[in-house]
Amino acid sequence: MQTKYLALPGPTMVNNEVLKEMTSEVFNHRGKDFYKVLQNLTEKTQQFLNTKNQVYYLTASGTGAMECAIVNSFSRGDKLLALINGAFGQRYADIAKTYGLEVIEFHGKWGQSFDYNKIKNTIDEIENLAGITVIQGETSTGVVNDLKKISEIKDEDTLLIVDGISSIGAEYIDIDGWGIDVIITGSQKVLALPPGLAIACLSDKALEAYNKSDLPKYYWDIGKYKKFAEQGQTPYTPAISLIKAAEKQLERMAEQGMGKEVQRHQIIAKMTREGIKALGLELFTEEGCRSNVVTPIKSPHGIKVAELRKLMLEKYNVEVAGGQGKLKETVFRIGHLGNVDPLFMISVLTALEMSLMELGYDVDLGTASKAAQEVLYNKK
Amino acid sequence: MQTKYLALPGPTMVNNEVLKEMTSEVFNHRGKDFYKVLQNLTEKTQQFLNTKNQVYYLTASGTGAMECAIVNSFSRGDKLLALINGAFGQRYADIAKTYGLEVIEFHGKWGQSFDYNKIKNTIDEIENLAGITVIQGETSTGVVNDLKKISEIKDEDTLLIVDGISSIGAEYIDIDGWGIDVIITGSQKVLALPPGLAIACLSDKALEAYNKSDLPKYYWDIGKYKKFAEQGQTPYTPAISLIKAAEKQLERMAEQGMGKEVQRHQIIAKMTREGIKALGLELFTEEGCRSNVVTPIKSPHGIKVAELRKLMLEKYNVEVAGGQGKLKETVFRIGHLGNVDPLFMISVLTALEMSLMELGYDVDLGTASKAAQEVLYNKK
Repeated sequence: MQTKYLALPGPTMVNNEVLKEMTSEVFNHRGKDFYKVLQNLTEKTQQFLNTKNQVYYLTASGTGAMECAIVNSFSRGDKLLALINGAFGQRYADIAKTYGLEVIEFHGKWGQSFDYNKIKNTIDEIENLAGITVIQGETSTGVVNDLKKISEIKDEDTLLIVDGISSIGAEYIDIDGWGIDVIITGSQKVLALPPGLAIACLSDKALEAYNKSDLPKYYWDIGKYKKFAEQGQTPYTPAISLIKAAEKQLERMAEQGMGKEVQRHQIIAKMTREGIKALGLELFTEEGCRSNVVTPIKSPHGIKVAELRKLMLEKYNVEVAGGQGKLKETVFRIGHLGNVDPLFMISVLTALEMSLMELGYDVDLGTASKAAQEVLYNKK
Repeated sequence: MQTKYLALPGPTMVNNEVLKEMTSEVFNHRGKDFYKVLQNLTEKTQQFLNTKNQVYYLTASGTGAMECAIVNSFSRGDKLLALINGAFGQRYADIAKTYGLEVIEFHGKWGQSFDYNKIKNTIDEIENLAGITVIQGETSTGVVNDLKKISEIKDEDTLLIVDGISSIGAEYIDIDGWGIDVIITGSQKVLALPPGLAIACLSDKALEAYNKSDLPKYYWDIGKYKKFAEQGQTPYTPAISLIKAAEKQLERMAEQGMGKEVQRHQIIAKMTREGIKALGLELFTEEGCRSNVVTPIKSPHGIKVAELRKLMLEKYNVEVAGGQGKLKETVFRIGHLGNVDPLFMISVLTALEMSLMELGYDVDLGTASKAAQEVLYNKK
């Protein structure tokens, strides 16, 4: 492998075949060919996500889709409970405040599971709670929040708005069964596409809420996407090349099914964790809610995150992420999502081990890869 | 030429070399490599646009950039004069109304130049006019509006907000000299890139207005783009592959300069018009304000636009656009922007002539191409 080992929680490596799809001629987004592509892509996406809900592709980053979720579902003054145990949970709260919602922030500890009883009590105390926002996979802390539990403790009238940007396809989800009203994602994560597309997936209840929403919106106005989708179009010129790449990738993923994708991510995540533990390093995320896409690790005493990342990149061509927000100096993160395979993680762990040793950390050669290999061996 | 002749007012054909740039490995948008790319792209874009104003790349369609222009420049209740002589002029007005601005709509006739004296009188009548919106090139009607005149008749305090989506690079503009405060464009027009990127170019005065603006914004919040640009980054994951393609293309365009690009578009537009006139067809757009990027043509009596377009596409692989909005049934449009060359237009005109003949229109063979050729010959 001559290319860079991109062990980031996105963007992720993209298959050559998918990249090449982007070199097809640009074509008319108001013509028959595009109609077929968008119809097929939408169906395949619904199939992969195992949902009957509407799926709309936006030309935007994931954050744009977060804003889209808020402005279409609520009205000024609506009460919104924002569940926050990381940087992205805060983002939903911030967007909602920007638009004049009454935001109740529920803070959990970074790196830990929420106390769902406490959430239930909070919900019970709020009259006319219009919606709840939650991140399924908090990329900043490596925590996966329990959407099923949240769907069980909320009222039926309260909209459940999920950010699935880094989790969709890698963590199990039952969008329809759990009554998830809006879930959004970005192309550059588990879907293993280049960045630039976002997906918004909306329930009938969310579309009803849209009709009552008084928040200002134009580009994010989902009613326009719905109307144009009926003719296999988007309201504004879409990122045609990325849409073509997405069609290629989603066809493959729909055929394979979400279950297999989740399983693949699970194994590689476990390999990562066992490798890290064998090295004697501490996982930042508590047990029981650990992500399949990213593993945050506390940097060992005396070793600076920036120094470790620099060494791994310059000597081994392996790029891991630093900590996010307040964790910047103390935590580094290994991403393992999208087109990753088990051997990729063996390489990344080896680079980490060698770099740690070079920085004075004491460990036997081959420790990390052996532990990871054992996970792989036992799965077979 | 085996590919489709895309004679649309966008999206436009993209060079293979530029398309191939999108197959480079996806890389970290928070790393050094991206820093270099974004810095270089920004500089080259400023150089091509011949402006000292700030340039920000958004992951969005052009309409997203229009919304970005409004929400960053104004506050609720601000008075905005929207100059409208086509579908896109109306769009700026609609976006502004969505956000609670007091919009005064000034309507000109579709296909005609504005009456600038009337605009001046209207401006003089409005107290505290915060801004004026105008489309440089109205793709729906083929009219180019006179930005210089508008800049001369407005007060210095009034912000001039321009949509340059289909005109930038093909119509002469002096952003700094004419005091244009915000101008936006999309990647899939004259810049001849795949769709998915938009550019917002802001003056210091616009950035001052941003500081006072109370409109809700998150994804479009230009303050965040400004802050991140200082580190060669974007606030949210950018469409990395499209950014790479844009860098390639803007390097080439900056080297060539805007003057040459405008000249090339001018000649091809003139070829188109002379070909059309020779065929005895009527141009929709009045003389003196005709676009270099699109030529709307009245369909001759008895020939349906849909039928003509279908025949040209199916028999000759030439795709022209229909009329926009209320012109849908009566006007068709030939786009000639981006990577077009004079011979491309000879082909398109030939396909048009043959198709018209097949539909019963009486004309001598070779009329259109000869007239177009004469323009080309005399220019040499």
